Amino acid sequence: MLKECFDNVRKLVPLVHNITNYVTVNDVANIILACGASPIMSDEPDDVTDITSICSSLNINIGTLHKSSIEAMYLAGKRANELGHPILLDPVGAGASALRTNTAVGLMEQLQLTVIRGNISEIKTLANGNGTTKGVDADVADKVTDDTLDEAILFVKKFAAQSKAIIAVTGAIDLVSDGTRCYVIRNGRPEMGQITGTGCQLSGLMTAFVAANPSNQLDAAAAAVCAMGLAGEIGYSHMKDGDGNSTYRNRIIDAIYNMDGESLEKGAKYEVR
Amino acid sequence: MLKECFDNVRKLVPLVHNITNYVTVNDVANIILACGASPIMSDEPDDVTDITSICSSLNINIGTLHKSSIEAMYLAGKRANELGHPILLDPVGAGASALRTNTAVGLMEQLQLTVIRGNISEIKTLANGNGTTKGVDADVADKVTDDTLDEAILFVKKFAAQSKAIIAVTGAIDLVSDGTRCYVIRNGRPEMGQITGTGCQLSGLMTAFVAANPSNQLDAAAAAVCAMGLAGEIGYSHMKDGDGNSTYRNRIIDAIYNMDGESLEKGAKYEVR
Amino acid sequence: MLKECFDNVRKLVPLVHNITNYVTVNDVANIILACGASPIMSDEPDDVTDITSICSSLNINIGTLHKSSIEAMYLAGKRANELGHPILLDPVGAGASALRTNTAVGLMEQLQLTVIRGNISEIKTLANGNGTTKGVDADVADKVTDDTLDEAILFVKKFAAQSKAIIAVTGAIDLVSDGTRCYVIRNGRPEMGQITGTGCQLSGLMTAFVAANPSNQLDAAAAAVCAMGLAGEIGYSHMKDGDGNSTYRNRIIDAIYNMDGESLEKGAKYEVR
Repeated sequence: MLKECFDNVRKLVPLVHNITNYVTVNDVANIILACGASPIMSDEPDDVTDITSICSSLNINIGTLHKSSIEAMYLAGKRANELGHPILLDPVGAGASALRTNTAVGLMEQLQLTVIRGNISEIKTLANGNGTTKGVDADVADKVTDDTLDEAILFVKKFAAQSKAIIAVTGAIDLVSDGTRCYVIRNGRPEMGQITGTGCQLSGLMTAFVAANPSNQLDAAAAAVCAMGLAGEIGYSHMKDGDGNSTYRNRIIDAIYNMDGESLEKGAKYEVR
Repeated sequence: MLKECFDNVRKLVPLVHNITNYVTVNDVANIILACGASPIMSDEPDDVTDITSICSSLNINIGTLHKSSIEAMYLAGKRANELGHPILLDPVGAGASALRTNTAVGLMEQLQLTVIRGNISEIKTLANGNGTTKGVDADVADKVTDDTLDEAILFVKKFAAQSKAIIAVTGAIDLVSDGTRCYVIRNGRPEMGQITGTGCQLSGLMTAFVAANPSNQLDAAAAAVCAMGLAGEIGYSHMKDGDGNSTYRNRIIDAIYNMDGESLEKGAKYEVR
Repeated sequence: MLKECFDNVRKLVPLVHNITNYVTVNDVANIILACGASPIMSDEPDDVTDITSICSSLNINIGTLHKSSIEAMYLAGKRANELGHPILLDPVGAGASALRTNTAVGLMEQLQLTVIRGNISEIKTLANGNGTTKGVDADVADKVTDDTLDEAILFVKKFAAQSKAIIAVTGAIDLVSDGTRCYVIRNGRPEMGQITGTGCQLSGLMTAFVAANPSNQLDAAAAAVCAMGLAGEIGYSHMKDGDGNSTYRNRIIDAIYNMDGESLEKGAKYEVR
């Protein structure tokens, strides 16, 4: 199943419209190219409706918001919804500032999102809502570990059901659920957290995977998580004396470039709960 | 001739003002440094007139337009024209949105451009104009191949003559013409298309080459195309097991860093038609 | 002393708010992670007060100014001052345009800065002021060399005393002074100047070092300069045939990633005057 999800990306070459932060945008573009898809970036309100219209998916990342890019997110999102394109929201820093929280919650309320991907803290913030929204019970631990796994799965399933989106919580253990099934994924390495933007890269990758697998979106989202984690493992295995986080960044993107459905299937470590 | 064009860049160290997209801007800066020139980035209307004034050339790239950066492009362009600085336009995505097409066409109409560099689709869009402009016949194939070469050369020559700019169409075969002569260049590798921004990088490089060779602008533009393609070949020859598009990106810039006029002359594959 | 300064960064993991340019922002984020600190980027006026409030330090870099980011610099700076957070100003291109000079001088006048780090030309511009400011005597040579060292030290000490900030002038020889003592640092390699953003990276690193060493800010700032220069030396020693400035960029960040207080202490080349 994961194999087919990746193969479809390389076969269909989905065009991903990214409204993303300027910190990690280059790596996001390169990892989307590495997986066989094609990126285009545009965050100007006067440009995004046209750009979204020629794409097949939309990746919204709130890592460095500007007034105009927020406007662009709503415009592009509405157009993507009209066209039935999948939309991924990466709520970077939700909970860290009112603007980020309110923007993420507002996008959730006004758009039909296909996937929301973040760390546990960001996802909890969205589940709690911003006062005008009644949130689900987000009384879940701040780290997904084997000890807290059961309650975390329950939380992610509940929030997926309520939000009608696939929820992907990434960390040491990753959870991806559509409200019914929940992938529990154990690929990756802790050193990935010492590179800026591995989360943003995963969001770009996941958007491409979901776009190329319209009838298997949960599996596609989980396949992207496995692919990113596996790339982290493969990239790490190529590290040499003197290498550090900057070289590791390149090696992870390189590993996606050299990965295919078969090697993904073989390296993926997951169970479905 | 190509040798001299590159040597002049290293000798004269032209300062290139770049108004470019935030996706590939870092690689553009590093490749400009790699060839021996010096980059400065500024896209704020209140800043660009001063910055252009201390530079010797202007590289305009419309990859991620904002209302304010469009204003900056016109302001910087007018100042560059007053000062006689060469201006390169990279019409990224012209044809993909009204804003991109109109901005590129507007810049063509209001500025005296020295070079326009894009892929065949972008250049055809500009040749067709945007309704208010009467374009040249752009009934040319969508790929420049040996089969379509003759008509493509004719098209590029015509559009160069009409626009009074050097036209550089890059792809599997690259064409660079001033309306009279046309360089047909066969350096490069298809894998360069799997890196974000090799086109943007070439535009930065080309601006530096043209700035350093005011009396040989066509040859300088062609030299930059050969240098970029040759760097793609050299970079690829250094690729090792496990390397992918992210490492390849670094190796291409590295190859420019290590290239000089002599090695360019030796590795360039072109004919003049 | 330098050892302790670096060890404190890895121990305390300061969160650095960066309002910086879009050219080198990714490398700034990665080098802050490499040294053991944590970066967050935000330049939207509606976001920065919240973001600064959860951080422990602020890095302001004027490399690509926008009207809104200038507003954000003042807002974040005022909040950082209220909270007693250290602020570093990197006046990129001060002297090259009125907007850059006026912004840097305005920030100096309205904020209590902890460190100002730039090249000799930028620092001289700030010392001269912008007309409304009475500057110190900036009749210092344009390069800090052994021949001009005495007058340069005097200038840096004077400007530090007048501005009540630590002044760091970086170049072939680096000077860091609080007005009383002056570190004279001889780490680094000339090839670092052929990479975009080594100065911006140093500013990010230095902000983290100063944040983690509130009672030793001068030593911390000097430690960051030594660390960056030493990383340049270590990175260069790993360069192989065919490597150039793009790979060198990665190797420098990697070297910070692998450095610790002990190796810094051992490799640092400085005297205090």
